[in-house]
Amino acid sequence: SRKTVAVLPGDGIGPEVLDAALPVIDALDLPLDLEFGDIGWECWRAEGNPVPDRTWNLIDRSDAVLLGATTTKPRGEALAELAPELRASAPRYISPIIQLRRRLDLFANLRPVENYLGGTTPYRYCVVRENTEGLYAGLDFSPVPDALWPLVADHPNVRRSTRTGAAASVRLQTAHGLDRILRFAFETARTHGYERVTLADKPNVLRDSSAYVLDRLERVAGDYPEIPYEVLNVDAVALWMTRRPERFGVIVAENMFGDILSDLGGGVMGGLGLAPSANIGESGNYFEPVHGSAPALAGRQRANPTAAFLTIGLMLDHLGFTEEAGAVKDAVRHVTRRRDRVTYDLGGSATTAEAAEAVVDACRAL
Amino acid sequence: SRKTVAVLPGDGIGPEVLDAALPVIDALDLPLDLEFGDIGWECWRAEGNPVPDRTWNLIDRSDAVLLGATTTKPRGEALAELAPELRASAPRYISPIIQLRRRLDLFANLRPVENYLGGTTPYRYCVVRENTEGLYAGLDFSPVPDALWPLVADHPNVRRSTRTGAAASVRLQTAHGLDRILRFAFETARTHGYERVTLADKPNVLRDSSAYVLDRLERVAGDYPEIPYEVLNVDAVALWMTRRPERFGVIVAENMFGDILSDLGGGVMGGLGLAPSANIGESGNYFEPVHGSAPALAGRQRANPTAAFLTIGLMLDHLGFTEEAGAVKDAVRHVTRRRDRVTYDLGGSATTAEAAEAVVDACRAL
Ligand SMILES: CC(C)[C@H](C(=O)O)[C@@H](O)C(=O)O
Ligand SMILES: CC(C)[C@H](C(=O)O)[C@@H](O)C(=O)O
Repeated sequence: SRKTVAVLPGDGIGPEVLDAALPVIDALDLPLDLEFGDIGWECWRAEGNPVPDRTWNLIDRSDAVLLGATTTKPRGEALAELAPELRASAPRYISPIIQLRRRLDLFANLRPVENYLGGTTPYRYCVVRENTEGLYAGLDFSPVPDALWPLVADHPNVRRSTRTGAAASVRLQTAHGLDRILRFAFETARTHGYERVTLADKPNVLRDSSAYVLDRLERVAGDYPEIPYEVLNVDAVALWMTRRPERFGVIVAENMFGDILSDLGGGVMGGLGLAPSANIGESGNYFEPVHGSAPALAGRQRANPTAAFLTIGLMLDHLGFTEEAGAVKDAVRHVTRRRDRVTYDLGGSATTAEAAEAVVDACRAL
Repeated sequence: SRKTVAVLPGDGIGPEVLDAALPVIDALDLPLDLEFGDIGWECWRAEGNPVPDRTWNLIDRSDAVLLGATTTKPRGEALAELAPELRASAPRYISPIIQLRRRLDLFANLRPVENYLGGTTPYRYCVVRENTEGLYAGLDFSPVPDALWPLVADHPNVRRSTRTGAAASVRLQTAHGLDRILRFAFETARTHGYERVTLADKPNVLRDSSAYVLDRLERVAGDYPEIPYEVLNVDAVALWMTRRPERFGVIVAENMFGDILSDLGGGVMGGLGLAPSANIGESGNYFEPVHGSAPALAGRQRANPTAAFLTIGLMLDHLGFTEEAGAVKDAVRHVTRRRDRVTYDLGGSATTAEAAEAVVDACRAL
């Protein structure tokens, strides 16, 4: 049966990379209906809302959401760009991707890290980042609010500061949040053949919360007896990701740790031009290249479309088109390893469109 | 005038790397008196205290503390290794390095990252990590304490969990803590010729605390008009450290972000075998190779002594022996680039002692 994909090109290089990569869907002759929608900076400026209602409607009736890129600006800058008549009535500016994650409860942020450039190390792992709690729970304050003051007042640095001279953020982890992300990690390992689950946490310092997380981990792991697991300090995971990426399978982490480790994964792969991501919930999702809107590159046909292809691949895999997802990855690998029709970030001189054509051609030839 | 150095070899490979590297102090004919002291796991086991009083006395009357390595174990494991008669009276086990940082108020954790292995990129930067607050403020809880409950109770994940089914940690930042670490960062840039200060924070998500930190940054930066500064998201810093380390000068970060970025710096340099660190306060300090006790390598003459040499270099620089500090770095560079008398982690077959002799010889020959 046919499936509907909401395509939201968004800001900056988002539209041009999607434009270049989408023909792969035709090339693979997939039963997908693409419907285009608006999101991002232009919507905010014109309508005072980066995700208009018509876009939520489109999202709600789609099987998958393919996002190009959106720009996340500090609130002050965002407000300044609004027409004065919109300023009073506009809701607080909230980054569109944060809105998508919250409203659709997209608890799992999946970033596969794979070697597409060749070289000696055949690593293949993924970062599974918790997406709804941790330091992103929205509990970030300055000055320190009344409720928190008694907890922090005794700290030696606080005694030498004042209540307005301090900031506090709460990192929240819950049974609900932990169990579903841990289960997602083990399921990913099981369905995608990763050999091990590594929890990146900080047990030697954040002793009580880490002990709690470990307790949840042990319960969930009980349902996956064939998959070994370990707990490592997050700093060690960062180090080993650069030194021995091949030792990892699924790395699961709290929101903020996961954010850092995910971007680092992009570095390991050879740059943001290559890194795809999926944000997944019980009943919603969106798929997005990690690179973001990259305003400095926009409109110049300089952006690497590889991340967009691999993002489409992730989406196909999620929709059950496993074989076609593999074909996209193979086509990307074929092109990036030969390095003849690649963009400048990989040492080539192809435009976005030319580099994309090479991948689509390879896909047809496979 | 002569200076006193407290040498605390500690656990694991700590004693053997210091043993191998210390002769460089004689080779450079430095006016230092070395006094040896006990710290770490053996002290905990025998005395119920990983940092005995006699060691605190030695530290208090020394100009610098040179630490080999200590082991930080989870509290339960630590308690289990105590003799039963000590268990009742022993204070709670706290990692010796956390004890040093707290009691001596060592607010700055400095990790220089420099290219010693050769190759094309001449990067040279350092991570300045805040060491006394942030997520390390000691405010880590499970279950969620009464004071915090009203703040978190509305979160959708909490509503689907219970109070005992959750954990919360508070990340604390203060005017006192921020101002001194930011000043340390700019001073380091000024005195050591780094071209720029980068604050690694998360302004697009932790909006209120980041705005507060930015406010402090702008004030402090006013005293250093010749040094440009910028704020980057911590995830982007992690990515760029692997892709373009040469773009950085001083990277300053909150405790937990700094912990991750520091270890990553070790990865950029080519592994923990190379990475030195300094922990510095108003009136105390300790200098330590980043590698830690590495129990699997201990007693086998496999450990790379380079980190210990570079740590001694950092200490000499701090004590005002700038020229000799440079000589140690040059000697290390000389040996690591030729790769003939290096340890296995750098592709050689030298023992710890042989690799160290090569550096001491190079130091004499300079
Ligand atoms: C833009 C920002 C809010 C976002 C995040 O921190 O989650 C981004 O860095 C990401 O990783 O998707
Ligand atoms: C051992 C541990 C407590 C410590 C830390 O997290 O600070 C270590 O990782 C470090 O970086 O010095």
